[in-house]
Amino acid sequence: MYATLLISCPDRRGLVAAVTDFIFRRNGNILHLDQHVDAEQNIFFMRVQWDLATFEIPPEKIASSFAPIAEQYHMSWRVHLADEILKMAIFVSKQDHCLYDILSRWRSGEWRVDIPLIISNHADLQHIADKFEVPFYVFPITKATKAEQEEKQLALLKEHAVDFIVLARYMQIVSENFISHYPNRVINIHHSFLPAFPGAKPYHQAYERGVKIIGATSHYVTPELDAGPIIEQDVTRVDHRDSVNEMIRKGKDLEKTVLARAIWYHLHHRVLVYNNKTVVFK
Amino acid sequence: MYATLLISCPDRRGLVAAVTDFIFRRNGNILHLDQHVDAEQNIFFMRVQWDLATFEIPPEKIASSFAPIAEQYHMSWRVHLADEILKMAIFVSKQDHCLYDILSRWRSGEWRVDIPLIISNHADLQHIADKFEVPFYVFPITKATKAEQEEKQLALLKEHAVDFIVLARYMQIVSENFISHYPNRVINIHHSFLPAFPGAKPYHQAYERGVKIIGATSHYVTPELDAGPIIEQDVTRVDHRDSVNEMIRKGKDLEKTVLARAIWYHLHHRVLVYNNKTVVFK
Amino acid sequence: MYATLLISCPDRRGLVAAVTDFIFRRNGNILHLDQHVDAEQNIFFMRVQWDLATFEIPPEKIASSFAPIAEQYHMSWRVHLADEILKMAIFVSKQDHCLYDILSRWRSGEWRVDIPLIISNHADLQHIADKFEVPFYVFPITKATKAEQEEKQLALLKEHAVDFIVLARYMQIVSENFISHYPNRVINIHHSFLPAFPGAKPYHQAYERGVKIIGATSHYVTPELDAGPIIEQDVTRVDHRDSVNEMIRKGKDLEKTVLARAIWYHLHHRVLVYNNKTVVFK
Amino acid sequence: MYATLLISCPDRRGLVAAVTDFIFRRNGNILHLDQHVDAEQNIFFMRVQWDLATFEIPPEKIASSFAPIAEQYHMSWRVHLADEILKMAIFVSKQDHCLYDILSRWRSGEWRVDIPLIISNHADLQHIADKFEVPFYVFPITKATKAEQEEKQLALLKEHAVDFIVLARYMQIVSENFISHYPNRVINIHHSFLPAFPGAKPYHQAYERGVKIIGATSHYVTPELDAGPIIEQDVTRVDHRDSVNEMIRKGKDLEKTVLARAIWYHLHHRVLVYNNKTVVFK
Repeated sequence: MYATLLISCPDRRGLVAAVTDFIFRRNGNILHLDQHVDAEQNIFFMRVQWDLATFEIPPEKIASSFAPIAEQYHMSWRVHLADEILKMAIFVSKQDHCLYDILSRWRSGEWRVDIPLIISNHADLQHIADKFEVPFYVFPITKATKAEQEEKQLALLKEHAVDFIVLARYMQIVSENFISHYPNRVINIHHSFLPAFPGAKPYHQAYERGVKIIGATSHYVTPELDAGPIIEQDVTRVDHRDSVNEMIRKGKDLEKTVLARAIWYHLHHRVLVYNNKTVVFK
Repeated sequence: MYATLLISCPDRRGLVAAVTDFIFRRNGNILHLDQHVDAEQNIFFMRVQWDLATFEIPPEKIASSFAPIAEQYHMSWRVHLADEILKMAIFVSKQDHCLYDILSRWRSGEWRVDIPLIISNHADLQHIADKFEVPFYVFPITKATKAEQEEKQLALLKEHAVDFIVLARYMQIVSENFISHYPNRVINIHHSFLPAFPGAKPYHQAYERGVKIIGATSHYVTPELDAGPIIEQDVTRVDHRDSVNEMIRKGKDLEKTVLARAIWYHLHHRVLVYNNKTVVFK
Repeated sequence: MYATLLISCPDRRGLVAAVTDFIFRRNGNILHLDQHVDAEQNIFFMRVQWDLATFEIPPEKIASSFAPIAEQYHMSWRVHLADEILKMAIFVSKQDHCLYDILSRWRSGEWRVDIPLIISNHADLQHIADKFEVPFYVFPITKATKAEQEEKQLALLKEHAVDFIVLARYMQIVSENFISHYPNRVINIHHSFLPAFPGAKPYHQAYERGVKIIGATSHYVTPELDAGPIIEQDVTRVDHRDSVNEMIRKGKDLEKTVLARAIWYHLHHRVLVYNNKTVVFK
Repeated sequence: MYATLLISCPDRRGLVAAVTDFIFRRNGNILHLDQHVDAEQNIFFMRVQWDLATFEIPPEKIASSFAPIAEQYHMSWRVHLADEILKMAIFVSKQDHCLYDILSRWRSGEWRVDIPLIISNHADLQHIADKFEVPFYVFPITKATKAEQEEKQLALLKEHAVDFIVLARYMQIVSENFISHYPNRVINIHHSFLPAFPGAKPYHQAYERGVKIIGATSHYVTPELDAGPIIEQDVTRVDHRDSVNEMIRKGKDLEKTVLARAIWYHLHHRVLVYNNKTVVFK
């Protein structure tokens, strides 16, 4: 068993010493330590993992023991225990490649996560949810019903105690209200190397522009469309021989991989968000 | 000795057969043939190289012999002979990495090209031109003098019979009039993966946005800033540890490589432009 | 409907003209044409696709009509019609990531292919075959039973008229006799950038050697282990923080993608094999 | 001004706390801290940089002040001050691309380093050394003269107080005796993705094998050929159209970039060597 502590705070002398000393004095052994200072903004970030086998503070009291140090240094912080299993909801529409990929990774044991439910605005992918035995809920969305349907979705998510949400090519814009319930906990995959080609039909835009590289971007959702903090991106080469359909085909592999990496970072508490950017400790 | 024929025209049946038959009947041996059809726009593109050793038409008559076929199929076309050596002018400002790279490749024999002159709006890089023994001309540019200075530059370029121009981090926007003298023959390097981050300070923009990948783009210059046909792009990973200065440092290697590839494609007559895009035959 | 013609033969003058003329005179319209000459070995390769809508030779007579030309130029050749659907058998052992990926691509319609059966030397992945409703056959292999079991596998493959075989992390070496029934039609995925780290436990070897990049290689199986013609490779970065298990995790994504690309090229008749190498027309 | 401390030692509890406490108590501010534990070998690695502006120990006494801690934890360690400028010797033969690249980076101020001399076994590149005004020494090498010439080279290197050596496509194998004077301080660039294609003519080997990716590897030189600790690698795609000469041309860009990155890591004290592998703190 180990604990993971994530910290951000104004930078000042002695921060690393204070935290490592806290762990060391109670006989904890540091497994990984990453820190970063944004020198321009004067912000300190840290992620530290330590073994609890010999640690003298019992797991349930770590947070309260650390609180005084956190207060002294004005830290934003959270601590995670390794045996905690997050609950992830998946939102989809009609495209199935990301859904297949996520469910396959989950079933093959690549990720330790619970997937209590899949939500969609269409019934098309019900059969995949069935294959993998995950409850599937359909909430058709029109302009008129959107607010109401989102309330029902939120109720369902609370009921299942969902920790974070993955929009796996969900073709609806989620409202500011919805997002406010899961700040930095709604992960989207956009099929372009943002900030190029935000919004609709990015592969068509890429084709029109004649780019030689296409990409995919996974980010936390914020009220501004495709403008949230970027978690991960990747790209692949295209050339004049690639039609829009070819770009879509090649892009699917990018989307799957980039989204999977973003989920993996999130699951392992490797992402800190600030100023609409991320620190991803690898 | 070999010839390279570049063709674009409306697509129709029999185009490849007509061209290859022209070469074959006169006893030419095809070395490379690439063709492409933009199925959406119904445009046909072709690049074919053939050996002139046994070809029965003398080099200087190839163009006139091919003209009737070209007319019949409404082709845009040009033919290049392998012994032709293009003349390339380089424009720079204060950044030296692309200039060093270009001159090194040239001096080490990687490219067959003449570099009759370097033009700059600053005197800073004179010492590099001297090292490599290339004439260096300084044309300081202000808003008031720009039109006049460009006329002088154009006169100098004509005088040296320059075929194409490379803007190797030249920090001036060249005018529409200037470009009109070298359509699809002014190659720029922009330090972002366009269309993301056009205009000034792209690395600062990239840093602000928190992207996980930065890039460089080489394109033909058109009147619209950073919006011309893209010849080549490449990218590299960055993360939260990369300050703007680190991005600039990493980006320099991208800029050098991407610009060098674009120049290489241009020198080898591998680029065809249409609809503000390029076909690059590799 | 369209036809795809694949050719290799000794290079000589007039090859492209002869083939395109064959298509043009019968009123076919070329959609794609790729050719390549191995100048060192003097071998000519060509892949040409043309529209059959207006082609005056009926599909079933194309082969016999082309045969005289093929004979004249000593061509190895084959012609494929677009409505043909290949039958692919999958061999697996205990690792499931490639199997999930292949079945997902197939079910989502990314590939036009039939998968009549999955063969394994272990029962572990039966549940995945069941999910995707593909017959699953278990042939446990020991040194003593190998020859006999392979005979049974071959009988089953014949019975299902299988066209080619994918070893999706099948942890058995298939015999020379077995391979001889499917020359250049058994596709393997090896989890290293061959020729580095052939044989067992390549990620352990990579970790030991301290490489900064790991890879995956898909190749046609030949009697010499991991030494067949390479169809596709890709790589990803690792560093000192990556344990063997991390390399295995990152490598899985490579393996899936590289194998899927190799299958796609094979399915689309884009691969020609010669001298233990491949020409892959993209 | 800042200091950089590099440590490796057997892993045990309290190491990070001990080091950060040392810095904190004397009023130093940590700028960067990276640590890594090889869990398999139980080895701890650390690189920490701190600001000396307010640090209460004068630079010249840092080492002696830290020594007791180092002793207590059985550390291998070294400390570097930011104002130290390393002396780098370059060895070349006839290929000029890496030499041009290194000298250009140096002259443009990308690297803070002194280059007191260039050594070659041929006179061919003298003109480049002259351009960049670096003394150039020729030591022709034959089997008979090798030992003697190396002694002269070593004497010259000592005379110039050279800190480390870069073999920039130096086509001689340096002897075990020579290497022993610069352990982990002779950086080589090999033109393949090692361990694939060690030894002579790697591009020819790659062409023969039909790989779809070629690479370059920079490593510290050890007595076993091309088998030393890898510092950096990179790759680029090739296909059947790439002749050996094309691979060589594409590979040159890789070699330049990979070698430059390795030099940069070395110059910034980011590399720790153990078990014939490297930890490169980025």
